[in-house]
Amino acid sequence: MTTWIRFRDAGGHIGFGTLDQHSGRVVQHDGALFDNPRPTDISFAADDLTLLAPCQPSKVVALWNNYYALSQKLDKAPPKHPLFLIKPPMSVIGPNEAIRRPKSYQGKIAYEGELGIVIGRECSNASVEEAEAAIFGYTCVNDVTAIELLQEDPNFAQWCRSKGFDTFSCIGPSIVSGLDWRSAHVVTTLDGVERQNYPLDDMIFSPAEQVSMISADMTLMPGDVIACGTSIGVGSIKDGSSVGVSIEGIGTLTNRLAQ
Amino acid sequence: MTTWIRFRDAGGHIGFGTLDQHSGRVVQHDGALFDNPRPTDISFAADDLTLLAPCQPSKVVALWNNYYALSQKLDKAPPKHPLFLIKPPMSVIGPNEAIRRPKSYQGKIAYEGELGIVIGRECSNASVEEAEAAIFGYTCVNDVTAIELLQEDPNFAQWCRSKGFDTFSCIGPSIVSGLDWRSAHVVTTLDGVERQNYPLDDMIFSPAEQVSMISADMTLMPGDVIACGTSIGVGSIKDGSSVGVSIEGIGTLTNRLAQ
Repeated sequence: MTTWIRFRDAGGHIGFGTLDQHSGRVVQHDGALFDNPRPTDISFAADDLTLLAPCQPSKVVALWNNYYALSQKLDKAPPKHPLFLIKPPMSVIGPNEAIRRPKSYQGKIAYEGELGIVIGRECSNASVEEAEAAIFGYTCVNDVTAIELLQEDPNFAQWCRSKGFDTFSCIGPSIVSGLDWRSAHVVTTLDGVERQNYPLDDMIFSPAEQVSMISADMTLMPGDVIACGTSIGVGSIKDGSSVGVSIEGIGTLTNRLAQ
Repeated sequence: MTTWIRFRDAGGHIGFGTLDQHSGRVVQHDGALFDNPRPTDISFAADDLTLLAPCQPSKVVALWNNYYALSQKLDKAPPKHPLFLIKPPMSVIGPNEAIRRPKSYQGKIAYEGELGIVIGRECSNASVEEAEAAIFGYTCVNDVTAIELLQEDPNFAQWCRSKGFDTFSCIGPSIVSGLDWRSAHVVTTLDGVERQNYPLDDMIFSPAEQVSMISADMTLMPGDVIACGTSIGVGSIKDGSSVGVSIEGIGTLTNRLAQ
């Protein structure tokens, strides 16, 4: 497993590199994260860095109804193909950045803790095997939703609108390659209290299946993120409350809904 | 009115500039289209250039149910806020580029001729007046749809999937600033036969209203395109057929569905 982060150093420079999760040391790399990154002789203590969103997606593809437990609770049949919406690049924020309530919206805002797949190479019509090779690694996602907008219009479910607001795609704190996702859980906390704890092996479409099937729908680009959908335990965030999304091996992504 | 195009010249270089629609001469500009473009002393005959998509959106926001005539035909109430989905950057193609049938899809593919709004400056929570000022100009859009996927799953309308395929957002041939859209029509032809001819002043949300309201949902970036929705006359495209979308003052956007 390799842990990749993107950061701003004390001098304000933006860089990326590998984090040793035991020692807390970061080795800066140069080149590009998805194209031959090379270690430099510069290193930092992680504590001296400000973490940024670990990648800058051209799009976030967010799944709905991708866990058996949730599909059973909702009494919806498991889909035959990943069901998804697209979240725009400006929706992405990194660890510890504030989720901002839209000025035009006073309703409930929901958290959804999820596994995020980070694409490492351009892929289109990929087989499951090719898709597996196109996955750079995994991150944590909080797929934030202005939930009262979703069914506001009786004729059109507003998935892109309710989930597309600036700051509504929290990703991080790192991207981990070589993660054994099948043995991991997503644990979501609200102000420190556990609200979601579900196993990733309950997924309907595995990460490689998702990448393969979605790559038949659109070309996936390096840095794109697929948010794998959530399971049971979704709830709303009060203004000022903090959401943590943890996956063993990746770490904890924390974001507060600004007051 | 100023007509802007992006092009590849005979030497393979990509540039942009203004087109004199009477003389057919193009004056190349340098700088950036949305940031202080400056005329150079290089000019071309438009016929010697290959037109490209006139901008490179970070996202295409595509509206549904934005014309009174179509809302009446569908018997759906006019919405209170623009209803939209997001199409990814890789869906965009320019004039005369081929629409490609997805390898995984054998069903009907529909054309939708539309007005496209091109954003000129970053805007968020813009008033209608600010939104008007943020509009750089207008283009033609063919919002292509793999229509049989839309309702394939009974629990989730697949708007992003059915409209998000590579090559499914045709835009061009130019961006026209200062267009009097209120007096213009969208005329869509299929293999030269008129299939749509509807007035833009039948729009439910005007362009400035769309930009204002959508900018409350997400930050709009320079080059982003809002596809204003279509009206009556949508139909399907046979493999090998050609679709033209014309708006007076902008020109005709032509794209063929590859065989």
